[in-house]
Amino acid sequence: MPASFSHAALVLGGARSGKSRFAEKLAHDSGLDRHYVATGRAFDDEMQARIAKHRADRADAGWTTHEEPLDLVGTLLSADAPGRVILVDCLTLWVTNLMMAERDVEAEGRALAAHVPLAKARLIFVSNEVGLGIVPENRMARAFRDHAGRLHQWMAAEAQDVYFVAAGLPLKMKG
Amino acid sequence: MPASFSHAALVLGGARSGKSRFAEKLAHDSGLDRHYVATGRAFDDEMQARIAKHRADRADAGWTTHEEPLDLVGTLLSADAPGRVILVDCLTLWVTNLMMAERDVEAEGRALAAHVPLAKARLIFVSNEVGLGIVPENRMARAFRDHAGRLHQWMAAEAQDVYFVAAGLPLKMKG
Amino acid sequence: MPASFSHAALVLGGARSGKSRFAEKLAHDSGLDRHYVATGRAFDDEMQARIAKHRADRADAGWTTHEEPLDLVGTLLSADAPGRVILVDCLTLWVTNLMMAERDVEAEGRALAAHVPLAKARLIFVSNEVGLGIVPENRMARAFRDHAGRLHQWMAAEAQDVYFVAAGLPLKMKG
Repeated sequence: MPASFSHAALVLGGARSGKSRFAEKLAHDSGLDRHYVATGRAFDDEMQARIAKHRADRADAGWTTHEEPLDLVGTLLSADAPGRVILVDCLTLWVTNLMMAERDVEAEGRALAAHVPLAKARLIFVSNEVGLGIVPENRMARAFRDHAGRLHQWMAAEAQDVYFVAAGLPLKMKG
Repeated sequence: MPASFSHAALVLGGARSGKSRFAEKLAHDSGLDRHYVATGRAFDDEMQARIAKHRADRADAGWTTHEEPLDLVGTLLSADAPGRVILVDCLTLWVTNLMMAERDVEAEGRALAAHVPLAKARLIFVSNEVGLGIVPENRMARAFRDHAGRLHQWMAAEAQDVYFVAAGLPLKMKG
Repeated sequence: MPASFSHAALVLGGARSGKSRFAEKLAHDSGLDRHYVATGRAFDDEMQARIAKHRADRADAGWTTHEEPLDLVGTLLSADAPGRVILVDCLTLWVTNLMMAERDVEAEGRALAAHVPLAKARLIFVSNEVGLGIVPENRMARAFRDHAGRLHQWMAAEAQDVYFVAAGLPLKMKG
């Protein structure tokens, strides 16, 4: 299937679904100058290993990497330019970081969605779908999945193309 | 995409997926007299806030609201009439209420499914997909997701239209 | 919808999604000699009841059953023959068994995927999608869903047909 996106794409998927690889392929196939915004922060060895693994996966593939756990809109603005594709991986880690920093997640999320139609670069956002299991007993986990679900709705409304990835296979939800 | 349903629709989705809003739009677009059956019961402030939020979301939109945590079939029968659409939100809260009341969830679920083809009103059922995470350690949570999964299968078999909603976007599974 | 598969199919779905029944129907509709590989092992009464329920569901339906919790590739090789369909239910239980036996899950998974194009029998694999909830707090649970997600990607790449089942309804992801 020829996967594509016009201006902005949202790529949703579960853990180990192949969503990041699919998003990287979308970026690669665009033929544009590729920028990568990593929102992940290593809190322990396990996360450090994951981040390193992701870095290795795009090694020597010509990406310019930006690391920013909190100020995502600012990073997108400073990297914004025609002829570029900017891949953000991922929104759920960003939401986690915002919550831990006690930032206003809803306001930040709405600002991100508002940036999408204004960007000169093409944009790809990767995010984890986390709302399809049992209601978590932990209050923070419930707040997190509510924040993530709402952000996905706002981003999907602004994106021209929305994919749901499972088992490495993209299912087009919009576009 | 023109979303529609013929006689009965099942709208599945995760937390904050936009499933309720989509179901309300389906009901609105039908042009029928709209009735709303709320199965939720407020056990704490968080749930009370959610229920109030849902109520506010449909405020001044012309719904007749019925609140019934347990006797869903009886409520549907008493509200049944041609020219009406009855939206039930949501089945997973109903399953939770039945379990807490130690009712026979399977018998009640089968009775609900059996009502669907007999209804004079058009019906829309909203429910949470909860079976796509890790197996819960809690035995009650496992029983809950088994009950929910089986009920979804029975309802999907009786519904003419089944939607899976993610990030506010409906994916048609049937119809 | 006419469901079908050519050489190998992967059937993903959540708990109580109807995925096993759908896979059994796929096998039945093939008209081939049906073999069933059960990977489940009863660790407690609840699992024993589930396994017995699954057995009852396919009772007197003409299946030859093989029970093998660990050596799945060996079992597939010994049962391999043209004119047969072999249904494996399910991969996630197999991953669980491999982890508990401290086997090399990645190597075993890659060997299973490598077997698929070489098989003389037609193959159907059932597995639970477990990566769409909140990140589990338990480290083993996180490792499990990582293993399952990667295995699904390898199997989906080798399968000609991939289905995602929800509420008893198959959604074709590939094929």
